[in-house]
Amino acid sequence: MISKNELKYIQSLYHKKARDKEKLFIVEGPKMVEELLNSDYETIKVWTTSETWLAKYPQHEIQIITEQQLAAASQLKTAHEILALAQIPAGQPAPFASGKLILALDGIRDPGNMGTLIRIADWFGVDAIVASPDCADRFNPKVVQATMGSLFRLPVYYTDLIAYLTRSKTAIYGALLSGAELGTFSLSVPLQEAILLIGNESSGIRQEVLPLITQAVKIPAFGQAESLNAAIAAAVLLGHFKIPHK
Amino acid sequence: MISKNELKYIQSLYHKKARDKEKLFIVEGPKMVEELLNSDYETIKVWTTSETWLAKYPQHEIQIITEQQLAAASQLKTAHEILALAQIPAGQPAPFASGKLILALDGIRDPGNMGTLIRIADWFGVDAIVASPDCADRFNPKVVQATMGSLFRLPVYYTDLIAYLTRSKTAIYGALLSGAELGTFSLSVPLQEAILLIGNESSGIRQEVLPLITQAVKIPAFGQAESLNAAIAAAVLLGHFKIPHK
Repeated sequence: MISKNELKYIQSLYHKKARDKEKLFIVEGPKMVEELLNSDYETIKVWTTSETWLAKYPQHEIQIITEQQLAAASQLKTAHEILALAQIPAGQPAPFASGKLILALDGIRDPGNMGTLIRIADWFGVDAIVASPDCADRFNPKVVQATMGSLFRLPVYYTDLIAYLTRSKTAIYGALLSGAELGTFSLSVPLQEAILLIGNESSGIRQEVLPLITQAVKIPAFGQAESLNAAIAAAVLLGHFKIPHK
Repeated sequence: MISKNELKYIQSLYHKKARDKEKLFIVEGPKMVEELLNSDYETIKVWTTSETWLAKYPQHEIQIITEQQLAAASQLKTAHEILALAQIPAGQPAPFASGKLILALDGIRDPGNMGTLIRIADWFGVDAIVASPDCADRFNPKVVQATMGSLFRLPVYYTDLIAYLTRSKTAIYGALLSGAELGTFSLSVPLQEAILLIGNESSGIRQEVLPLITQAVKIPAFGQAESLNAAIAAAVLLGHFKIPHK
């Protein structure tokens, strides 16, 4: 059973204002909820159409609901089996990059891109993401789903990027179409300590952030395409930074 | 002006059956239409809300329409300035991979992924894409838009992938989670002649295609993420194949 008030409450959390106030967010689907329940995040309540979850997670408050009730609560095109309410952890200051590999994001607005970047960073063993405050909120439901569970593993900090990069003593590789092509400068691969900076999907890295870059880098183009999507570019750059050639 | 019949006709082309029958497809937005008009593709007719196109492309049949008419014809969430009707070129047999870098796709169903893969292949100078017939149609409007113009430059062939790979004498690198990790086997970078095979988004490469792979490859995981999206994986693999380290 899901009450009308609960339904309203869940729907309110699809907006950032309500999430910030309530310190709660929504997770949907079996894979994502499974990752949530096995993470350090606190799960407040779970609603599902399948009784199998009751036996599997007896320590959690799990309510059985109908397909119709789930569809009403869900923001997915096709609601899938389960929906959970989880706590947003308390914010921490962004860590220093010393000894770490950091992915810095300047104005990634698209929730799908933001989620995909979190998933890519998790794959490549990035220690943390440091994002400008105008990046898509990591607890936006579209971001949550696009992370495929990486949200629960990878720390993401929203902070003044200029102040953060200014304080940092680490090499800052900025992805720029005017940068030096990969393969034309030396790197010690796998790179253990660095900041990789990726800019907004259409306008790139902000003008005032550019002077903080210590090495502007570009993925060499072998064909005619004018650009790569921000997430694709980050993946290719991280691949080059982490995977040596034999 | 756009007639009711034209509007109906355009809308019918959002379905593959009608495209296959009429040998026509739709291109939307200033960037994509500009790429179309400057390509070898034949443009049949153009409708736009902006008169600037008339002077710029006097050799084309361009009709001025209202925002409302454009919105009615468009399949985009927000119609943008211009929409064109273009001819689907006659099919050609897939080229042999000898001396070429080929991206082979087995069952890429999602139009966004298909379009992104065409754009990535164009960026990395892939000579052609060879796709199984169940891959998303390259003239599907969502594919067209996701290619960002690369559709007009990169040849894409739909064919029996097993027959194609069986005939091929070239090394076939198949992306598999059980493959050899990049960096653990020798490659001559940039790779000039090879087939890179990418499988379906959830089920991967079909069982019956696996024996044709000459080198199964995996992107090493440095973190906890279980997988990468098919387009992201293709981009990282192509980056590794094409960009040497200094």
